[in-house]
Parts: sequence; C-alpha cells; structure tokens
Amino acid sequence: MCRWAAWSGAPKFLEELICDPEHSLIHQSRNAFSCKTQVNADGFGLAWYDSRKEPCVYKDVRPAWADANLLQLAHHVRSPLFLAHIRASTGTATSHDNCHPFTHGRWSFMHNGQIGGYGLIRKRLDAMIPDHLYQYRTGATDSEALFLIAVGYGLDHDPVGAMRRAVQDVEDVARTHGQLPYMRFAAVWSDGRHLFAARYASDNRAPSLFCRSFVDGTSVVSEPLDEAPEAWTEVKSGTIVLLADGYLEEQRFNASMVSAA
Amino acid sequence: MCRWAAWSGAPKFLEELICDPEHSLIHQSRNAFSCKTQVNADGFGLAWYDSRKEPCVYKDVRPAWADANLLQLAHHVRSPLFLAHIRASTGTATSHDNCHPFTHGRWSFMHNGQIGGYGLIRKRLDAMIPDHLYQYRTGATDSEALFLIAVGYGLDHDPVGAMRRAVQDVEDVARTHGQLPYMRFAAVWSDGRHLFAARYASDNRAPSLFCRSFVDGTSVVSEPLDEAPEAWTEVKSGTIVLLADGYLEEQRFNASMVSAA
Amino acid sequence: MCRWAAWSGAPKFLEELICDPEHSLIHQSRNAFSCKTQVNADGFGLAWYDSRKEPCVYKDVRPAWADANLLQLAHHVRSPLFLAHIRASTGTATSHDNCHPFTHGRWSFMHNGQIGGYGLIRKRLDAMIPDHLYQYRTGATDSEALFLIAVGYGLDHDPVGAMRRAVQDVEDVARTHGQLPYMRFAAVWSDGRHLFAARYASDNRAPSLFCRSFVDGTSVVSEPLDEAPEAWTEVKSGTIVLLADGYLEEQRFNASMVSAA
Amino acid sequence: MCRWAAWSGAPKFLEELICDPEHSLIHQSRNAFSCKTQVNADGFGLAWYDSRKEPCVYKDVRPAWADANLLQLAHHVRSPLFLAHIRASTGTATSHDNCHPFTHGRWSFMHNGQIGGYGLIRKRLDAMIPDHLYQYRTGATDSEALFLIAVGYGLDHDPVGAMRRAVQDVEDVARTHGQLPYMRFAAVWSDGRHLFAARYASDNRAPSLFCRSFVDGTSVVSEPLDEAPEAWTEVKSGTIVLLADGYLEEQRFNASMVSAA
Repeated sequence: MCRWAAWSGAPKFLEELICDPEHSLIHQSRNAFSCKTQVNADGFGLAWYDSRKEPCVYKDVRPAWADANLLQLAHHVRSPLFLAHIRASTGTATSHDNCHPFTHGRWSFMHNGQIGGYGLIRKRLDAMIPDHLYQYRTGATDSEALFLIAVGYGLDHDPVGAMRRAVQDVEDVARTHGQLPYMRFAAVWSDGRHLFAARYASDNRAPSLFCRSFVDGTSVVSEPLDEAPEAWTEVKSGTIVLLADGYLEEQRFNASMVSAA
Repeated sequence: MCRWAAWSGAPKFLEELICDPEHSLIHQSRNAFSCKTQVNADGFGLAWYDSRKEPCVYKDVRPAWADANLLQLAHHVRSPLFLAHIRASTGTATSHDNCHPFTHGRWSFMHNGQIGGYGLIRKRLDAMIPDHLYQYRTGATDSEALFLIAVGYGLDHDPVGAMRRAVQDVEDVARTHGQLPYMRFAAVWSDGRHLFAARYASDNRAPSLFCRSFVDGTSVVSEPLDEAPEAWTEVKSGTIVLLADGYLEEQRFNASMVSAA
Repeated sequence: MCRWAAWSGAPKFLEELICDPEHSLIHQSRNAFSCKTQVNADGFGLAWYDSRKEPCVYKDVRPAWADANLLQLAHHVRSPLFLAHIRASTGTATSHDNCHPFTHGRWSFMHNGQIGGYGLIRKRLDAMIPDHLYQYRTGATDSEALFLIAVGYGLDHDPVGAMRRAVQDVEDVARTHGQLPYMRFAAVWSDGRHLFAARYASDNRAPSLFCRSFVDGTSVVSEPLDEAPEAWTEVKSGTIVLLADGYLEEQRFNASMVSAA
Repeated sequence: MCRWAAWSGAPKFLEELICDPEHSLIHQSRNAFSCKTQVNADGFGLAWYDSRKEPCVYKDVRPAWADANLLQLAHHVRSPLFLAHIRASTGTATSHDNCHPFTHGRWSFMHNGQIGGYGLIRKRLDAMIPDHLYQYRTGATDSEALFLIAVGYGLDHDPVGAMRRAVQDVEDVARTHGQLPYMRFAAVWSDGRHLFAARYASDNRAPSLFCRSFVDGTSVVSEPLDEAPEAWTEVKSGTIVLLADGYLEEQRFNASMVSAA
C-alpha cells in the first residue's frame, strides 16, 4: 500500500506535513506501522499549486529519506494546496513515469488501491483513454490509466461524476475480464482550488483514508500522521470529501450509483 | 538520431566496440559528427548473450561517458554477440523503460528511425500488440511497440518475416492515420545466435546502416566507428543482413513485399 | 568549461534565464558554441533565495534538457536572486555532491575554472578547510574545497576579502606543489542579498564572465545568453562585480593584492 | 547496520547468494529481521572477479529490489569470488561514491561498523591517507578512508597486517579525538584470490559476522542467509578468517596486538 498526504488551507511549508509530524510521510516510508507492505521506497512525488494555473510536480525514484532535493524543496516550498505520495509498487516498475501524483493541465491525482487482474485488462483500460489524451499515457500503472480515463470523462466539468464513472467502468472491466478484488480505491484529486478525496471498494476492504480539520485548513491522509490518531476522522468507504475555500462537504461516492442512474 | 553498434563473432570485450575505437559509440555520443541531433545523451543500453538463453540487459539514463557502471561492465564483460545503443530522444521521455535494446525472452531489438505522426497513432499501435504481450509494454516509444508487434507476429518462428510484416503494418497505419515520413527504419535484432540488421524507408531517407567483416566476426553499426570509414560497407535501403555462425547473407527487406504477397 | 547564469533584481521565474533566452543555459548545454568542451551534461544545479534565510538547492546528474523536475521547477519557482550551473567535468566524477552551486548556511557559490595540478594538491587543500567545516566537504571537487576555505576565512564578515585570500592561498599551493595553470577562476557567490562575481587568473586566460543590466535587475553569466552579445559587458580579469539592492559596483579582484597587503 | 555477503569457491551465479536464498540480501534489505536499522535502502554494490585482474564493480543508489540492472547482472554474472553489500547509512549521503565495495587495483573491501565521532576526526583520517592515494578518495565515508589507509600500509604485501594496523591507528585517533564506541568493525576484503573476513571491536559489541562451508566453497555474511541459521558459524570478535583455494584458516585479529608488537 502506498502512503500519501494532502493539504488544503492557508499556505504551509510542505515539510510541515511530510517531514515534521510524528509518523510523517517520510517516517512512514521507513516504518509503515499498520500495513502489509513493509517499506515504501518505490518512488516519491509532490504536486503543489502556486501562482501558475498548473501544479508544479517533483518526482523521484530514490527513497524519500535519501533524496536531498526533496528535503530541500519540502523545507522551502510553501503552498495552500499540495499532494504528496510515497509509492510501494504492487507490480509495475519503479520509474519516474510511474510515480504519483499524475497531472494533466491544472489537475493532479494520486491513488492508493488495486484493480483486480490489472495485467489481464491493462490493454482494455488503455483503449478507454481517448485518442487525444493517449500521448499523456507515459507510464504503465493502473492509476495513471484510471486518471486519464476520468479526464476523458470530463473531470474539468464534473470532477466528481467523471471520477465516479471512471471507477465504475474500470470496475466493470475488472469484473468481466479481470479478477478479485475488482476495485479498491482511495484517491485525492485537485484542480488547485478544490480538493476531492474519495474512498470506495467493490468489497469491504477499501484502502484507508483519514481527514482532519485544523484552524487553518484540512489535511487528508492515507494513515494518521501524529501521535493522536483519535483526532483523525476515518472517511467511510463509499464516501467523497470535497474541500474548497475552507468549506468541507461529504457526499456518497458509490460507483454503482452511476450505472443505477 | 540514435547511435548503435552490434557484434557477432568470437567473444569480444564490449569496450572494444563501444569505448576503444576512434569514433567509438561513447565518443560519438558527445560528438556526433555527421548527423542532425548533436548530442546523444538520452540513455544508454546494452544487451549481451552468455551462457543463459536470454540476454543480459543493462540500461541507464545517464550520459554514457559519465556512467561508471557502464565503463566497468564494458571493460569486464566479454560476449560473442551483443548490442549497444545510445539514445537521442525524438520526443518520448528519457527513462529506463524507453532505452534500447528492448528484450523479450531470448530476443533483443534496437532501432533507429521514425514513424510519422507517432503521437497520433500510438494508441492504434498499442492495440496491435497481442493481449498476452501487453504486460511487457513498459515504456512509451514507437520502437518498443514495433518490437512487441513483431514478437506477436511470430519472431520466434520467422524472424525476418515477422519483422517485415510489423514494419509494413505500422507503415500502413502511419500512411492512413499518421503523417510523413511514414516509416524510416534501421534496426538490429537477435536471438543470441542469429543477428539481423535491416534498413528500410518509405521514402529515400532510411537511417544509415554499415557493416564490416573482421577475421573473428562482423560488426553492424549506425555510423562507421573508426578512422577508415571506407572499410565499412553501407547496407542499402530495402536490405537485410543475416549473420550466424560466421556466415553473412543479404536479402531484400522491402516491407511492401508483404502486402504484395 | 562549465556554464552558468545568475540573477539579482526583481523576482523572476528561473526559466526566464535558464530555458527561454536564445542561447539559454539549457540550450548551451547541448550546443556550447564558443568553447572547448563540447557538451555540458555532467550535472546541473540551482540555488535560489526565498523567504528562508538559506537558499533552496536542487541538483541532479542527468543532462539538464532531460530532467523533468528541473523543467518544472524552472517554470514555477520565482526568485529575486538565484544561481544556475551546468557542469562539464574536468576530471572528478559526475555526482550530486560534485554539482554546483555549493552552499553553506546562507551562502551559495558556483565556479568555473581550474587549479593546476589539483590531483597533486587536493590533500593540501583539504587540510586548509577548518576542522569545524570539514564535515561539509561531501564531494571531491576543487571548487567545493575553495569555497569551504573561503568560508573558513570569514566569508560572513568579509565576502570579498575572504574569497580573495582563498584564491590567493590556493594559487600559492598550486604554484609550489601543483602545476600550470596555477589558477583560473570565474565565480559567483551570494548570501541572498549581495551577489559577487569575480574573474581572475594567474595567467592571461581567465574563464569568461559577462554582465548585463536590465531595468529590473542584473544578470551575470559565463557566456552571453541571447542574440545580442554586444549588449553584454565582459568583466575584465582581476575584477569583481558587487550587486546589491539594484546597485552595481566594480572593484579590483587581484589575488596577489592580499599578499601585498 | 549494513548487510553483506561474500563467496569464495566454485563459480556461482551472484543471484544464488544475493537473490535466491531465504533471507537473501535483497530480502533482508526490506525486512531486516534482527537489527536496529529497519530498512537497508541507501545503496547497493557488487564487486566480482573474472578474467581481469581487477574486480568489476557495480553500484547504485536505488533500493536493491527496484534496480532492474542489478537483478539482470545477478542472474547472468557467475564468479568464483564476489562481494555484495547493501548499505544502511549511518550519516553520510546516499551516493555512488559512498557505496561499498570500495576497490583499488585488484583489491576490494566492504565494511560494516562504526568509528566513534567520525565527524570529529574525519579530517585526521583523511590526512592519514598517503598523498599518492588521495586522488582515490572520492566519497566521504569512514569505510573508504579506512580502506585507503590500509592500502597505504601495504595491503598488497601484508593483507592482514596492513588492515590490522589501519584499524588500530584509526581506533587510536577515535580514542584520542573522537568518542565512544571507538571502533566496531566487521569487514571483508579480497585480492581476487584470497578472501579475508575480520571482526573486531573496542568494546564487546562487534558487528555480527558468520561463515559457512559448502561442498563447493565458503560464504561469509553479516547475517545468516537461510532458514537454517544453526548451519552458520559465528566468527568471534577479534578473529580473522582467511580463505584461499578452498582452504580456510582462522587467526586472531586484535588491533591492539599491533601496538603491543
């Protein structure tokens, strides 16, 4: 399982979230205390928003704790909205192109989860990426395919609906041509103003997702980051959290709602 | 344009071909003296055959001249058949997965050329890769797609015919959905015993390909490697050179022969 | 010879200096048009100042043009004072620790030049680094040694005098125990407010150094960056340029002045 | 603590020692089961002997399990004598130059241990490296300094005595100018024919060292590599094991013996 953290609120140095706290991301990358994959050292990525419309992206395949550039950037960059991700590969190679977050235009996306039988259905998923977006398919992960499918479904105009439909359709492919578990999904995506965090699974084992409000903003993480785990609220499976301008809202995020519609 | 060199014959230290000669590959990577792309520093790759059936592959994205591991391996590894490639990207990213040679089972493949409008037709090319081979599509280059399509067409049973058909079919797609120049192709491929080197283009500008016989073997290169360029024989466009067990043979390699058949 | 550029003035996106101009740094790294070393691809480094007292440093050993992180940072980071350096190694390894700029506390430093017989006198230079600074000697370059010697001589209190003395003393060691040319030196250093650019040689072949004033600031470079080379003023050998708060001043920078004092 | 393994005997594929066994080196790098530092992912190195006099060296800073080149080499390279090392940094940077094994001429060396107060005495240790060897000091580790000091003391003529004296002298410096623990040392070194493995500490906590004889050779490791730990013999602190031509011998390796002499 991967590890990640996101922030939306007052400008914050990246290191406050990814280096400093007890059980920070970088600490977690060495000592994943409550998960199966014991080491998260298959790549690191950051996406932060600043005065440009598109996010700035930094990725590297070295372990986070040994990456001098990452530690420098985390100490110096301050942003009101950022995503940070530490990868523990479930199969595909450790490479720049396979590191999260993935970005397209103003959108960034990071993901933790599993698509059952991905190796069997990857070609079908690639075929679901629209022609005009196919050139942005630079890696080989299920996460990047899912993201580009959602972009193709209109993330720009309906950030929740497009992702819901992408998750649903990919789950359907996994159900028909892949294998169990069809879909386990915890993800964060953003356009620089809104932050979306959703959790869903086709079974009862959705990857964990936690949320915590501070006076100056909100943090969404894959695992609680400090010594007060009770201060973090677990996002229920089948739920999406929407953050924008200091306002937080929860909705249902149930992929099968789409097909029911 | 990329640079490459291959050897088939008596076991030779890799450095004899890639480091030592006047105008060696590594020298060429800094001073490409007769080509448009002025620096070849977008990745390096080696595939050599030894007692194993499959080739050993080493790739890295550092410039060849700054890669201590490469210099060590070139000095120590001796092989009767090897391929070496220095990449000058024509668009896709500098990454391990995009470096030549590409391999599958006992096959290795490296390529220099261009598929017109690749960005427009990449999705169609990916769709031509058979399902069971799609998991081996790890990068984003036209060369890897072409190779996997050829593997799918039966490289194992008909090494020349399968590649000819792959080139032909990809050229057809470029002609219909891509743009000029439809196909420029110079490539070397091997199963560890036979070495194939072909040159072809849909126009009259096929990438260069040279061949030279020595008492102990034959070398095939993209550019002559030493101060006696007249000692190298240019392989004509539309021709394939077959090397095996010290025997050299030339055949026509004309993609359109396939559709004519 | 290395290539570099520095800016002091109104906040500017890094890419305006290192990517955009005709003959930008990155362009120069592929096509060094007026120098001996033909390719500059042995590492890249940036140091920029922001709200922190110390500079933020980014270094990597990939060629600049192939480094996605660098292109992202150059597009997003805006700073009133920054240094950018592309290395062409004169012998020591291509490694993160050997990339410029070097930093210590609020100081940054980048250098182009040569210390004659460095291999012979490196141990003597290392011994000139004060004990309390020795832990910051992480690489093996002459430039890093020179910088730490200058820090030891009191860069904090006398930025010009300490560097002058370091250059003088190192030249003396080269003269006694090294070989010709004893000292060729073009360098830029900064504490985040002042920028110092000096040129000096023990012979008449100091590495080039150019300066240009714009309405919103001043740029110092190793080679003119655009199509109007006549707009750049060559800094004479034996001269130091001091920039601070939009004010520019020239002084003599003659290492032997120290011993004369 | 680092992890390492060495082999002397009949030619063996590297992977038989570093990938295949239960608790292989690469497995250990993720799940160090009996040590303090929980992850070993700060660099990997191999040195193997073949037909050349000097060893072939491969090093990289990626985690071993994510390094495609390493897995290829381990599968293909077969050698009668090789050293493999996975680094867990105790402070100095993760860089190629800081990875073990270190080599000089035909000698290779890898080390696990600690020199108390290394940061305080590094300059003194560097000064103990002879002038003519100083150019080979490319990194910043205590291990590389110790090795070059031993080379300077005549490793070529007295492989045991020179190392003993180096350990002794460095311990003396740590005792006088450094701090506790003065010296903890477990190391393997080889000239391609002989393999030396020594264990020593100035206190009673020498890093672990194990040895096991097989019908076709002998393996020396930092930790037992398989599910039968009782099959491995612990080398006692203050002992050196000498292997050559299938013959194994133990001697005392007590640094203070030197000064007593």
